Amino acid sequence: MIDLRSDTVTKPTKAMREAMYNAVVGDDVYGDDPSVNELEEYAAQLIGKEAALFVPSGTFGNQLALLTHCQRGDEVLLGDDCHIVQHEVGAASVIAGVQLRTLVSDKGVLDPEDICSKIREEELHYPRTGLICLENAHSIGRVIPLSNMASIKAIADEREVPVHMDGARLFNATTYLQVDVKEITQHCDTVMFCLSKGLCAPVGSILAGSQSFIDRARKNRKLMGGALRQAGVIAAAGLVALKDMRSCLKDDHDQALYMGKQLAELEGVTVFMEDIHINMVFFKIEKPVDYDALVTYFSNAGIAINGHEHGIMRFVTNHGITQADVDTAVTTLRNFLKEHFQ
Amino acid sequence: MIDLRSDTVTKPTKAMREAMYNAVVGDDVYGDDPSVNELEEYAAQLIGKEAALFVPSGTFGNQLALLTHCQRGDEVLLGDDCHIVQHEVGAASVIAGVQLRTLVSDKGVLDPEDICSKIREEELHYPRTGLICLENAHSIGRVIPLSNMASIKAIADEREVPVHMDGARLFNATTYLQVDVKEITQHCDTVMFCLSKGLCAPVGSILAGSQSFIDRARKNRKLMGGALRQAGVIAAAGLVALKDMRSCLKDDHDQALYMGKQLAELEGVTVFMEDIHINMVFFKIEKPVDYDALVTYFSNAGIAINGHEHGIMRFVTNHGITQADVDTAVTTLRNFLKEHFQ
Amino acid sequence: MIDLRSDTVTKPTKAMREAMYNAVVGDDVYGDDPSVNELEEYAAQLIGKEAALFVPSGTFGNQLALLTHCQRGDEVLLGDDCHIVQHEVGAASVIAGVQLRTLVSDKGVLDPEDICSKIREEELHYPRTGLICLENAHSIGRVIPLSNMASIKAIADEREVPVHMDGARLFNATTYLQVDVKEITQHCDTVMFCLSKGLCAPVGSILAGSQSFIDRARKNRKLMGGALRQAGVIAAAGLVALKDMRSCLKDDHDQALYMGKQLAELEGVTVFMEDIHINMVFFKIEKPVDYDALVTYFSNAGIAINGHEHGIMRFVTNHGITQADVDTAVTTLRNFLKEHFQ
Amino acid sequence: MIDLRSDTVTKPTKAMREAMYNAVVGDDVYGDDPSVNELEEYAAQLIGKEAALFVPSGTFGNQLALLTHCQRGDEVLLGDDCHIVQHEVGAASVIAGVQLRTLVSDKGVLDPEDICSKIREEELHYPRTGLICLENAHSIGRVIPLSNMASIKAIADEREVPVHMDGARLFNATTYLQVDVKEITQHCDTVMFCLSKGLCAPVGSILAGSQSFIDRARKNRKLMGGALRQAGVIAAAGLVALKDMRSCLKDDHDQALYMGKQLAELEGVTVFMEDIHINMVFFKIEKPVDYDALVTYFSNAGIAINGHEHGIMRFVTNHGITQADVDTAVTTLRNFLKEHFQ
Repeated sequence: MIDLRSDTVTKPTKAMREAMYNAVVGDDVYGDDPSVNELEEYAAQLIGKEAALFVPSGTFGNQLALLTHCQRGDEVLLGDDCHIVQHEVGAASVIAGVQLRTLVSDKGVLDPEDICSKIREEELHYPRTGLICLENAHSIGRVIPLSNMASIKAIADEREVPVHMDGARLFNATTYLQVDVKEITQHCDTVMFCLSKGLCAPVGSILAGSQSFIDRARKNRKLMGGALRQAGVIAAAGLVALKDMRSCLKDDHDQALYMGKQLAELEGVTVFMEDIHINMVFFKIEKPVDYDALVTYFSNAGIAINGHEHGIMRFVTNHGITQADVDTAVTTLRNFLKEHFQ
Repeated sequence: MIDLRSDTVTKPTKAMREAMYNAVVGDDVYGDDPSVNELEEYAAQLIGKEAALFVPSGTFGNQLALLTHCQRGDEVLLGDDCHIVQHEVGAASVIAGVQLRTLVSDKGVLDPEDICSKIREEELHYPRTGLICLENAHSIGRVIPLSNMASIKAIADEREVPVHMDGARLFNATTYLQVDVKEITQHCDTVMFCLSKGLCAPVGSILAGSQSFIDRARKNRKLMGGALRQAGVIAAAGLVALKDMRSCLKDDHDQALYMGKQLAELEGVTVFMEDIHINMVFFKIEKPVDYDALVTYFSNAGIAINGHEHGIMRFVTNHGITQADVDTAVTTLRNFLKEHFQ
Repeated sequence: MIDLRSDTVTKPTKAMREAMYNAVVGDDVYGDDPSVNELEEYAAQLIGKEAALFVPSGTFGNQLALLTHCQRGDEVLLGDDCHIVQHEVGAASVIAGVQLRTLVSDKGVLDPEDICSKIREEELHYPRTGLICLENAHSIGRVIPLSNMASIKAIADEREVPVHMDGARLFNATTYLQVDVKEITQHCDTVMFCLSKGLCAPVGSILAGSQSFIDRARKNRKLMGGALRQAGVIAAAGLVALKDMRSCLKDDHDQALYMGKQLAELEGVTVFMEDIHINMVFFKIEKPVDYDALVTYFSNAGIAINGHEHGIMRFVTNHGITQADVDTAVTTLRNFLKEHFQ
Repeated sequence: MIDLRSDTVTKPTKAMREAMYNAVVGDDVYGDDPSVNELEEYAAQLIGKEAALFVPSGTFGNQLALLTHCQRGDEVLLGDDCHIVQHEVGAASVIAGVQLRTLVSDKGVLDPEDICSKIREEELHYPRTGLICLENAHSIGRVIPLSNMASIKAIADEREVPVHMDGARLFNATTYLQVDVKEITQHCDTVMFCLSKGLCAPVGSILAGSQSFIDRARKNRKLMGGALRQAGVIAAAGLVALKDMRSCLKDDHDQALYMGKQLAELEGVTVFMEDIHINMVFFKIEKPVDYDALVTYFSNAGIAINGHEHGIMRFVTNHGITQADVDTAVTTLRNFLKEHFQ
């Protein structure tokens, strides 16, 4: 099966399975798991934060950040199209109990002046602005310019509002920008990034920040039910992901670009070429399509895809997707369009 | 003192004080207060809803509506500039526990297509869209066209999402539009409106909707600490407000328009004339001003005003503000500008 | 109608109506209401706290105290039979988001050692103990000994946990104990007491504590929708309640004791005489009774009563209930029992 | 190291590591992980529920149950000494937003009549009783009689309140009672049990119940950040735990009983022999002890133990603790006591 639904479908590599098999473990609730400890230390150092915490998922890490940064009732400034707003089931209002202020986003880019004007003064009628959330690489597939992050961070610092970054695909951003990860993470106080997705670990994400923040997050992780026992078995895979797999993301990006170009040559298909920053290709089929039929057609050809969202299709390359796979996918779409529109 | 800070400063009229003095009362928690019952019945009938509930304030009524319409974690669509977002201290995330989705607002007008695209399908990653909130007259001083409300209500009905309206200044809207109040309230399932503000009651607002909604709201009002005892003493004033004072709002609007025109003649002052729909005049002083000094200067002249918000000043006419008062205010500003810029 | 359902049914006195009629008022959200300010200052001084805040109801005041003292997720120690647990609709989990730890209560008296053992240390698995709540006079009709309050306050101070007291019937407690109110309020950091109930104000309660606590509570009151406008009209009545009506409570207590004795002489009726501390008489009818019929029977005799709770009846004396009224009630019960059991 | 701190310290067996190495996996958020699916089906069938869900931890599973059963503000009846109250960081008030009613527990056993009297009627002042929580085996080390569970379930059914069971050590209970697990789980609507602890899986628990409950829990699991990707790697270990390790618990229990008897022979040590139902031995050292020194003394002897709670020590046997290990521990305590008290 060629799976283009998401990069979340990546499977653990052989090296990961071996690392899991051999992992030295302990009870992480007691702080006794050497593999978890090693991963947390490695991750913190890699991205230039004082401390890091292993968490079960990206959503968990983002929500834990909200819970730990904010008091109930605080207002959080973030883009209307970001993952926390779009794909986390309203968790911010359930767990952290914060008020989202969903800002206009220009393909993931927030306007620093807009943010500046929305940070609250102390006043009887106003909630406290508790946090600004950024996302990079953005889940819409684009990488946010560092200059934009820097501008926002400068305002945040001046107004003493912390900045959290959802970096579920942080290393896709570094790959695209060809910068050291610290060039990105310097622009936020805390960051969550995933070991799964393009990096192929089966389970787990990292939340990083200052030591005192992580100390409080550790307790809140327990509250949220994310303190695991012999988590070293999955942390060991995460360590492989972080050490060995970052360099593989370039290949995913290359395949995405190649796919974009191939798809763009199909008649009746519009590819958003300028949005191919990482491993995601967004495109539109210009004529009305039975998308259920399309998904089934691909499935019959051995290719897993998702249906459209608001008329936009998304194909995601990921570890193990070869140029031949991309060609197969493009051919399949060509055939489908030919059969249905001629 | 001439008080232009807000229409919330209005004081109870002599008729209201007499009504309070003579009010027949009982324990409203037992449903025993005839004055409250009369007010609730009168209000419901007036605005064309099945039932109404007396609540302590406008914020209380809006938050009670959120709590009663929504489950924790539901998403609420509403304009970024509306009162619930701007001036209710983040309460929506504390009490109802809902996720706000703050939409772009064009001077209070929301785009029906934008709303349509943001109502959620059922999907694993999505919260439920629990409510759409409108506001009319809007707290930025404008009245929203009925056609816009109608478009949004049609979409909401089709997608089975209820609509709540913050009508803190509902009767300012009817006054501006010269329509029966039901012409407005037909476009929402529930509505909150204030008896204070331009209508001059000292305390209290109404939340109205279907009988079953109000039954549930009554219990939630108890939870929120808003079930009062011999509330008839204030309901009696509210009844006077609702019966006798609606017709006075026209005068507030006329004074505001007059004030706008007078201020517009001052050099260095830009009045947002097209925004004077009700009793609020927004204007800008073009040169840099020491706003604290301005407030003090007015205070010394016997006029209470608020400072600026983001460089914009707001003067609000209200019951008892005469044309002479307006002239005094305009003269005071002219004098201040003359003294400070010449 | 003789109303024995509760002391919440008391109506404003003529002096109160006059005070309301003449009250000098302003917009209390701006801090401009002289009557509210006077009431808050008077109340704070009377009970020996730095500052006080006028709130719409007792439930509102208690919940505001929880919200202001605690962070979301804090644990609150309080008796299982207290009003916050029993009669506030679960608000503590909705608004303040705190975890109640409902302790065994011996007729309202909590065991200091039990409290001591339940205050949490700092530990990964534990919530923070955020507050201890006491209630005096207790809503089960008894007054808690000052020595018990003192013991608990000493523990609380040592462990640095604040103490809030629900004093809905605070002055019933002072009346019973024949002490200055400060003798009671010294044993808690914050206290809520009602101006309605036995004191006859139509609407309103007071929350009092340190200046910094009240400052934060004032903002939270806005969040909860309890910031009112010309609240002086009701504060004026509250001031009469506080100044003139405290001395009347003795009479309510005397009538309750008299009623208890009279009821105790009825065959088949067991009165909990030792529980008559204030204005409440609890009793049991030993034979199975159709309580709906009983309520109707009293109603036909011009007496309003509530039905039983777990087989226990409660009659409450209140302002204006005379000895003749008590005799009428006792006679009515005698007649009912005679008709139904002979 | 001999680790007697808890049974949470157990490490994955060789069979588990092999299962993890070989696990067929997929993206469980898409429902594509065969190992997770197999585990969920196996677990549901084993305990006699329609459906089951893999969750990251026991705390996660309990809190997910609260969130899924209850509306915000519902009241939950449960024992004051249960894990949800004691060791879940106040999560019930943060995530589910429910009001805990912490009942008197007689060594984990709740009084059915007490529960019956505390289930709420519909009334303006009352929250809804949303759930009853039981725990078996109880975290205080005892197994609750089935007759007690049956009595409570009968009441719950009559009053239409669901029952959730925290079965973190469910199979310790079946081992002690020598019954099929369905004999226990029949008395609750939903149950959480752990694959870690005595069963030795490194990570993970199961929440089981009706199909419709699990469908809703699946979405709430996403909200809480507990939807994992290739979770099959840990589910595979969980499947080994569930299939192969249940029979090993008997040995842990035998060692605990043996340890209890040996410790009881030490002078100055009181063992709570009647509380040794499963793998936990609670005892008291009669003379004042420097517990930090005790922990260090054991550590130096190669034995990990926890300090006391309220003067009570707990030793927990677990997979791999042999009789020789127990003897070493007992000897170590004997030596410590000899050195310190002679």
